Amino acid sequence: MRVTDRVKEILSYYDGERPGVKANLARILMQGRTGGSGKVVILPVDQGFEHGPARSFALNPPAYDPHYVFELAIEARLSALAAPLGLLAAGADRFAGEIPLILKANSANSLGTVKDEAITAGVRDALELGCSAIGYTIYPGSERQYEMFEEVRAGAAEAKASGLAVVVWAYPRGGLIDGPGETALDVVAYGAQIAAQLGAHIIKVKPPTEAIATAEAERIYRESAVDLSQLSARVGEVVKAAFAGRRIVIFSGGPTRGTDDLLADVRAIRDGGGFGSIVGRNAFQRPRAEALAMLESMIDTYLGLSPSVRA
Amino acid sequence: MRVTDRVKEILSYYDGERPGVKANLARILMQGRTGGSGKVVILPVDQGFEHGPARSFALNPPAYDPHYVFELAIEARLSALAAPLGLLAAGADRFAGEIPLILKANSANSLGTVKDEAITAGVRDALELGCSAIGYTIYPGSERQYEMFEEVRAGAAEAKASGLAVVVWAYPRGGLIDGPGETALDVVAYGAQIAAQLGAHIIKVKPPTEAIATAEAERIYRESAVDLSQLSARVGEVVKAAFAGRRIVIFSGGPTRGTDDLLADVRAIRDGGGFGSIVGRNAFQRPRAEALAMLESMIDTYLGLSPSVRA
Amino acid sequence: MRVTDRVKEILSYYDGERPGVKANLARILMQGRTGGSGKVVILPVDQGFEHGPARSFALNPPAYDPHYVFELAIEARLSALAAPLGLLAAGADRFAGEIPLILKANSANSLGTVKDEAITAGVRDALELGCSAIGYTIYPGSERQYEMFEEVRAGAAEAKASGLAVVVWAYPRGGLIDGPGETALDVVAYGAQIAAQLGAHIIKVKPPTEAIATAEAERIYRESAVDLSQLSARVGEVVKAAFAGRRIVIFSGGPTRGTDDLLADVRAIRDGGGFGSIVGRNAFQRPRAEALAMLESMIDTYLGLSPSVRA
Amino acid sequence: MRVTDRVKEILSYYDGERPGVKANLARILMQGRTGGSGKVVILPVDQGFEHGPARSFALNPPAYDPHYVFELAIEARLSALAAPLGLLAAGADRFAGEIPLILKANSANSLGTVKDEAITAGVRDALELGCSAIGYTIYPGSERQYEMFEEVRAGAAEAKASGLAVVVWAYPRGGLIDGPGETALDVVAYGAQIAAQLGAHIIKVKPPTEAIATAEAERIYRESAVDLSQLSARVGEVVKAAFAGRRIVIFSGGPTRGTDDLLADVRAIRDGGGFGSIVGRNAFQRPRAEALAMLESMIDTYLGLSPSVRA
Amino acid sequence: MRVTDRVKEILSYYDGERPGVKANLARILMQGRTGGSGKVVILPVDQGFEHGPARSFALNPPAYDPHYVFELAIEARLSALAAPLGLLAAGADRFAGEIPLILKANSANSLGTVKDEAITAGVRDALELGCSAIGYTIYPGSERQYEMFEEVRAGAAEAKASGLAVVVWAYPRGGLIDGPGETALDVVAYGAQIAAQLGAHIIKVKPPTEAIATAEAERIYRESAVDLSQLSARVGEVVKAAFAGRRIVIFSGGPTRGTDDLLADVRAIRDGGGFGSIVGRNAFQRPRAEALAMLESMIDTYLGLSPSVRA
Repeated sequence: MRVTDRVKEILSYYDGERPGVKANLARILMQGRTGGSGKVVILPVDQGFEHGPARSFALNPPAYDPHYVFELAIEARLSALAAPLGLLAAGADRFAGEIPLILKANSANSLGTVKDEAITAGVRDALELGCSAIGYTIYPGSERQYEMFEEVRAGAAEAKASGLAVVVWAYPRGGLIDGPGETALDVVAYGAQIAAQLGAHIIKVKPPTEAIATAEAERIYRESAVDLSQLSARVGEVVKAAFAGRRIVIFSGGPTRGTDDLLADVRAIRDGGGFGSIVGRNAFQRPRAEALAMLESMIDTYLGLSPSVRA
Repeated sequence: MRVTDRVKEILSYYDGERPGVKANLARILMQGRTGGSGKVVILPVDQGFEHGPARSFALNPPAYDPHYVFELAIEARLSALAAPLGLLAAGADRFAGEIPLILKANSANSLGTVKDEAITAGVRDALELGCSAIGYTIYPGSERQYEMFEEVRAGAAEAKASGLAVVVWAYPRGGLIDGPGETALDVVAYGAQIAAQLGAHIIKVKPPTEAIATAEAERIYRESAVDLSQLSARVGEVVKAAFAGRRIVIFSGGPTRGTDDLLADVRAIRDGGGFGSIVGRNAFQRPRAEALAMLESMIDTYLGLSPSVRA
Repeated sequence: MRVTDRVKEILSYYDGERPGVKANLARILMQGRTGGSGKVVILPVDQGFEHGPARSFALNPPAYDPHYVFELAIEARLSALAAPLGLLAAGADRFAGEIPLILKANSANSLGTVKDEAITAGVRDALELGCSAIGYTIYPGSERQYEMFEEVRAGAAEAKASGLAVVVWAYPRGGLIDGPGETALDVVAYGAQIAAQLGAHIIKVKPPTEAIATAEAERIYRESAVDLSQLSARVGEVVKAAFAGRRIVIFSGGPTRGTDDLLADVRAIRDGGGFGSIVGRNAFQRPRAEALAMLESMIDTYLGLSPSVRA
Repeated sequence: MRVTDRVKEILSYYDGERPGVKANLARILMQGRTGGSGKVVILPVDQGFEHGPARSFALNPPAYDPHYVFELAIEARLSALAAPLGLLAAGADRFAGEIPLILKANSANSLGTVKDEAITAGVRDALELGCSAIGYTIYPGSERQYEMFEEVRAGAAEAKASGLAVVVWAYPRGGLIDGPGETALDVVAYGAQIAAQLGAHIIKVKPPTEAIATAEAERIYRESAVDLSQLSARVGEVVKAAFAGRRIVIFSGGPTRGTDDLLADVRAIRDGGGFGSIVGRNAFQRPRAEALAMLESMIDTYLGLSPSVRA
Repeated sequence: MRVTDRVKEILSYYDGERPGVKANLARILMQGRTGGSGKVVILPVDQGFEHGPARSFALNPPAYDPHYVFELAIEARLSALAAPLGLLAAGADRFAGEIPLILKANSANSLGTVKDEAITAGVRDALELGCSAIGYTIYPGSERQYEMFEEVRAGAAEAKASGLAVVVWAYPRGGLIDGPGETALDVVAYGAQIAAQLGAHIIKVKPPTEAIATAEAERIYRESAVDLSQLSARVGEVVKAAFAGRRIVIFSGGPTRGTDDLLADVRAIRDGGGFGSIVGRNAFQRPRAEALAMLESMIDTYLGLSPSVRA
């Protein structure tokens, strides 16, 4: 399949980047049902590490098995599977060549109190496993934020030199940010900007709420008189914050919830110019058939097809 | 597209190899019209370096342009494009993600008298350009053969550690081998064995003639009473020499000649259990439309379809 | 264009420095409308990272796009563009060779409470992007100041060994310095001295106020009976603090404000012997035409031409 | 000065290359009187090393002084100055920023009998001296050709990683090539192809004669029925051999001779699609005024202006 | 003592070089009786290694003792002492700070047949011994010349990065050069040029004879109609060959001979613009008092004083 004009346009945003990085971005952008459309739907399965296995997998026990999540991503014809080292290593051989892999290279858990992540994998691992990208979480605002930025920078430089794409999960927290502030529009947009400045090719954020956390941003948004009551408008602001749409910004699905809610979000992401979804718990915590149906509907929505939800 | 059972079977020959290597082999095996069939057709364009630009491209001047050969490989829906550093670098950005690339990492020319090749690229280059494999020529028998083997070994080890597949062009020459001996059955088979022993994943040889270059090999072949008068039988012997078919062995097309001749070879390669063709001059020295028709017929033949030659 | 005598004189201040560093300083000093005059006007766009995207760009949304700020700097015929890694990487290919680039190599944000910066880029990045200089912020006085100095020193040594010029943003804060003290004359001059001692070739400071933060400095200034009521006199004191004018000292524009105010500052900087301005928000937060007119007036002022403000 | 459309087109041939490399190519292509036209005229002064100082400089003794050749290149408003380490180091400080420098990184002399060159400088030197490119001579065909190729490859990879452009002087000699063969059309074209495959951005060759050195090339050229009796047609063939014009190919001036002869060559280079001249002895062995007049006429010719020879 | 204007002028020839290198050159140029005059007289004692101890020292047995040669150089108030590692290490401690040292870093002997030298010391040794410079011999023309150039280049780069000056002994031999050719004017000049191109700060050559070894050089010298019958004129040609006098060129004394002969040479070196002498056997093979008298006369001659030979 030839790379489509829309995907070539997106690749052109990364001019000056090594061709190998573009080839790996193209792999993700041309994969699966959304392939060629400029939209992506990615399955992330790092919750076992981040939230613990019971919270993550007990609702749908087959998901304890790495092969299950590989098969789910492949069968749903998604764009990529993102996970930490151990999980990817448990399936990369058996499913070699079936779906682009994103190696989540730093990880935290919910047992401790330090707002930081450990580097748990490297570029060498990503190459050995045949990954297309490497990913890092940052916590802008936290006490360890600058150390995290430096780790991302080092890893990103090495990844790009090896032709790998770089994904950054931007989750502001700590510092001057309170709980609601973590998903406030200005804060989410700020996280996207920082990820772009650090050299991320793909940026993952949470869907922004109507909250504005900082007084100055609130004043400026108010003066600019843009109506931010709709999620689609807020998605547009976040995408603008990532170099005016020149970086692939995708939105997380959050905790498990109803399919209608999810699809409403997807429509808003699509209408606001977002590049897609990264949806984990809402996929692997549902029973397999239900998950596949939900993902099919999400993709239909991104492709502008009449949704075909059967759940 | 799911990796097919046939391709999974071929990948299983490489068990123990890093998943990234398998993913890159899968990329080549799943690409283009032969994708999934277990057969490959590869376009190599190293003749500008090896034979000189006039001899290589003056018959069909558009082929002087690297973009032309990228487009030819893509439009003909081949499995991969193989070329030296300069040529790949001249198209890897524009055609990122469109076709697997094989970086030819050593090169010789026809101006000198030393039977050797220079290392002209490395694994770092292959990663930066987004290649799926790196390739080396060896001259078993030549005065420099052992230095060449050592260079291949070093490059192959580094390539595998980076998840890249390794292709070896096995061209016995020099030493005890005279001109006709270079394509003698026992010699071609010997070259394939050496390539396999050096760790090649894909092995390129020339179609073997009926000649047997060494007395001992001739006696043994005679005693075994196998009928080697047909190319298909000889292809079978060469494939056996590469770990009983556990390595992908492909056959070169040689100097430009008629389509009927070429297709007869392809049938013999197919019937003898060969994995495909690597066809350069016969592709890029023909006018574009003629080349596309010829390649389509080659692929039809590999796929067992009724050939559709229009030339 | 031959390097002018004035620029050769400035370059002679850096005798003993590697010729590559001088060549890069010459590039900045010979670029644009002020080229050859010994004055520079630089566009810095690190506010997206430092203050957040909404505060920085929502007032003039086209500025969200990195290409916009490249074009603004080029069209206004400025001396250089300074920005963090991500922003420069988003335009360095398209605008290659059009304007000298300064890679801002450390970055902070306004979400956290730690007075520090993360190292977010390196000399290798600067070379790959074709930059003429690398830049660092220091916070003399802060709790992390000495770690910051050590990072600057290490980066500056590597930069000089690669022929790159070094820019230091000297922003005293924290420690014994209160809010008004950050722009007090003695403190600004102290920051300039520290930057010069760390090996900076170009030093950025804020225009100093009439405040004197330390009792000893106040006594000495009073005894010396210099009239410091005018900004031009204070600029002169800061320039003296940077090795008696042997280092290029430039002054920031601060928050967005009226053109008359800005031009008054520029006249004072010029009359006090300052080397130029680094003006970000006052440039990219204005509508494009207005920004170009303002920058033209600034440059006219530096060149001693009759200002041509049209805003 | 904005980069012209023609220069942007040339830079686009190098897509996928690092932005720093493009910026350095742009520097050369935008410099001097030919700046922006897509043509270049370069002064090389490596003859003191290659041929000896008396043969090189005694005809015009001021040329013994490195400052003289710097000034000649600058005053004639050429595109770049190319020379070995010692000569560049003797002027890089004084003339910092005045003209792009190309560091000739390997060198031979005419006292010995070995067809090889010594590595006499490296990328680190080029960066310290503020060079825009690094250059290597290769002798395709010679007994040491493959070692030379490997040295070029290693140097080129390091240069590109540092944002420097790579120039290759392609001088086939030795091996199967006799004296007249060194400038035979097919051999010159072969040298250009090899340089391009090794990753050169700029390729220097000698103007090809009507001779064809290899039987196969002669047959193919005869069959293709192209009239090669004119130098312009032969220049066209050589440019095609460098990736169909996607690499900057420039032609040497050879031993000192009359201005009319030189200008006739320049017209042929221009008409055949060559990118310019690299003219050493014909420039620095003439008295200064005569050299400036000759260079002015060369440039006039490239720019399509009525020549203004006054010699 | 202030650095004199003449020495400052010589140091200016090395503009762009690191200040530490200039400081070490200044140390040599300001030392001893010629200090400040721009002339140097250096004592080299590498003959024990190069020619064997009996040939070198038996004529004046006290010279077997390294302390003797240190004392000779110091008492004669010379500019520097040059010797291999072992000899310098035997006196560097006792005579620390008394005279600049030049570590001869490669060495050959007269027992073998290979025209090459071994690297027998390094920059680290030079720093540990407190040397001001490091020195290398090259044999332009020999079969190993290019390897020698590469060793010099590597050593010189490291030396300069450590602030050490670099001395090159340029002795063309082998290849196309016969015995008389080794001291032919054009060949000596060629050696000086190569040393300068390799980055030498101080170049040692033999006084050139009237012979011209190459036909082309002879033609050019004849055409230029310069009278080369006097040594002073030939010295002038050699000095021109080292960047028109921008490098310190010094001349060896050769085998032991009469003081009148030596002083005649010195006058010619002085009148031709040479920078001084490096005189070994003629110094340490004479009895101490005689040697001191001869050196005093040499220095008187360089300083333009009425010679005061008492021998």
